[in-house]
Amino acid sequence: MVYGYIGSMKTQPGKRDDVVAILLSGADSLRELGCRSYVVGLAADDPDTIVVTEVWESKDHHGASLRLPEAKEAIAAAMPMLTGEFTSRELVVAGGLGAGD
Amino acid sequence: MVYGYIGSMKTQPGKRDDVVAILLSGADSLRELGCRSYVVGLAADDPDTIVVTEVWESKDHHGASLRLPEAKEAIAAAMPMLTGEFTSRELVVAGGLGAGD
Repeated sequence: MVYGYIGSMKTQPGKRDDVVAILLSGADSLRELGCRSYVVGLAADDPDTIVVTEVWESKDHHGASLRLPEAKEAIAAAMPMLTGEFTSRELVVAGGLGAGD
Repeated sequence: MVYGYIGSMKTQPGKRDDVVAILLSGADSLRELGCRSYVVGLAADDPDTIVVTEVWESKDHHGASLRLPEAKEAIAAAMPMLTGEFTSRELVVAGGLGAGD
């Protein structure tokens, strides 16, 4: 089943753009890992919140990507700039524009 | 600015798949309206909740798409199958895989 994930994170004041840069730095390499979409957004109603929406070939593909050394390094680099306030939602992707291969 | 929208809706019991079919029916035609991504997902934790994540060239493109007769018809067809419980979040899209043209 195609897997969707929506995650938000809150950054320390003034650190949003630095975290966005980290999130975007690896985005191009995700396709070969089974990622169909990885969109980084800035919450329109909050200057310190980032929302990432993702589509993966499966939940396992998503999980495997997070265990890669590059991902762990990115998470370690971003974590000190985050407040620890996260939200997440998992989805079964039914289809749509941009959900395919 | 590239515009992102995450919207959820709750369906009447047993009506989720009917609403998903309505949402997907027009997805292919969205690209020419300025839509870069329109992904319909089923909430993994709730059998009656649908989440749509969208990326548009601008907020105006998104707004214009909702004023088309086809969109109004689709909304009118889906509305009786919804409970009226909606959430929405607007985003400024910073980039990522699937956020481009």
